[in-house]
Amino acid sequence: MSILVVGSVAFDNIATPSGRVENVLGGAATHFALAASFFTKVRVVAVVGDDFGAEYEDVLKKRGIDTLGIERAPGKTFRWGGHYTDNLNEAKTDFTALNVFEKFQPKIPKEYADTDFLFLANIHPSLQTAVRREMKGVRLTGGDTMNFWINGTPRELAEMLSLVDVLLINDTEAKMIANETNLPRAAQKVLSMGPRALVIKHGEYGATIFFREGAFGIGRHPFRAPALPIEQVQDPTGAGDSFAGGFMGYIASQGEVNREVLKRALFYGGVMGSFTVERFGTERLQSLTRDEIDARFQVFRELTHLE
Amino acid sequence: MSILVVGSVAFDNIATPSGRVENVLGGAATHFALAASFFTKVRVVAVVGDDFGAEYEDVLKKRGIDTLGIERAPGKTFRWGGHYTDNLNEAKTDFTALNVFEKFQPKIPKEYADTDFLFLANIHPSLQTAVRREMKGVRLTGGDTMNFWINGTPRELAEMLSLVDVLLINDTEAKMIANETNLPRAAQKVLSMGPRALVIKHGEYGATIFFREGAFGIGRHPFRAPALPIEQVQDPTGAGDSFAGGFMGYIASQGEVNREVLKRALFYGGVMGSFTVERFGTERLQSLTRDEIDARFQVFRELTHLE
Repeated sequence: MSILVVGSVAFDNIATPSGRVENVLGGAATHFALAASFFTKVRVVAVVGDDFGAEYEDVLKKRGIDTLGIERAPGKTFRWGGHYTDNLNEAKTDFTALNVFEKFQPKIPKEYADTDFLFLANIHPSLQTAVRREMKGVRLTGGDTMNFWINGTPRELAEMLSLVDVLLINDTEAKMIANETNLPRAAQKVLSMGPRALVIKHGEYGATIFFREGAFGIGRHPFRAPALPIEQVQDPTGAGDSFAGGFMGYIASQGEVNREVLKRALFYGGVMGSFTVERFGTERLQSLTRDEIDARFQVFRELTHLE
Repeated sequence: MSILVVGSVAFDNIATPSGRVENVLGGAATHFALAASFFTKVRVVAVVGDDFGAEYEDVLKKRGIDTLGIERAPGKTFRWGGHYTDNLNEAKTDFTALNVFEKFQPKIPKEYADTDFLFLANIHPSLQTAVRREMKGVRLTGGDTMNFWINGTPRELAEMLSLVDVLLINDTEAKMIANETNLPRAAQKVLSMGPRALVIKHGEYGATIFFREGAFGIGRHPFRAPALPIEQVQDPTGAGDSFAGGFMGYIASQGEVNREVLKRALFYGGVMGSFTVERFGTERLQSLTRDEIDARFQVFRELTHLE
């Protein structure tokens, strides 16, 4: 089945202890789309500038991604520069040039009206809400957000939360939304704001999915997937978006959405994130094969499963 | 089979957002012994003062723990006071009065010479080394340490590390010993210093066990056990020692020590830690039953196991 991602496409400058790259393809929608493309048919709604050459679009097309929804606007593509020191969990932003992304108004091509699944990457919550309302027929909507919107536009965020089925955020964001330092209590509070399931990403410690009572089947407890301890992390940029792409892409590839599917999706999310960090930018996702994904899924299983 | 723990017995004053207690039974050896007592026969070598009334020793005796090795010295028992704010992962020490613990010289009763397993709780590494050398016949030795010894007595610590089979520490301690910020690389470096296996405790995110190449059977990968997301954490004091007690106690209860045993032990460690934090001090370990432990072990399994 098909999935539509709405979000940023960007050029990144990234420096980490392993090296530095400039003007590499980045952005949340890019990482999400590439990761999801190993599981299902992916469509993208985003905006780029006139500096976005065919060679960049080809990276997506080579993975079979439908780029009809990538709008070309006069001006430059969104640019982000950041660096990481020894703590690879935390990016320090060097510069942000929104460029054409500043006035982004998502336009959904009529060809995308029959899309089955939707992912609202991290953009202004009012835009997320507008897209969600327009895509009435989707079976399940996932969403992301960040501290900037949590602090700056809480009312708009609350409306968005009331419209998504699964929210994917990190520990700090969950505690910030709920104004609560205990993680499971924060999770319950976020779930009471709308989502039927909440995925909290713990970086190198994996991720936990919390369910609203009775949502997606029966069960009292949350579920945890590990992250693989990785010796060579070259660049963490895009790990969270790749996680979301693996998670949502796997869900979209299944006939039914139930707890078992969501649990396996959590493992696939971790798998895709673990590949992304092995190389700079989208490099690893570009060279990846489905066989490598399935092999690592088995490694993740063995990492936590008792005989 | 029997296990001997050598370490501190103390009186604690503890304040957390859930309340405060004074003069409650504490200490690493106490939490370890209580947790391990649900799995196997436990012996304790420690020192207490003349203020250590029979009612405290009875807490251990009621759990069938052999207290013959608890020496009574003239003076007062070790006292610790600490508090936690919203970040329950980090204790702030209010005071430390070592008292009789300052001159602690572990004396192993001759009745303990046939002990099968040994755990060296967090004391001066030279004392750990001396005990380890004296207990020649043990099948497996576990050990703990802390930043104070890592920074202050690195040579003595190195000797201790060369003599333990399994070291149990947290992320920060592992990175500090190895002088390396990447966790799996830090783990490899610690393993190269002696231990055949290294358990790294991640607090609310669970724990990972890394193996030296070829140790305890075949396998390339580490193994991860989750921690249960707990809504009501009353007091984290002793969680790490209870983890060690569950881990080592389960190992001692098994005929053979192989990777599968160590993996299940990692789950039992998490289970015992998760109970301890539910109440202040040793309260929860005192009221616990083996049935509750087995039920929670199943919850931990379901938390990470795919169908």
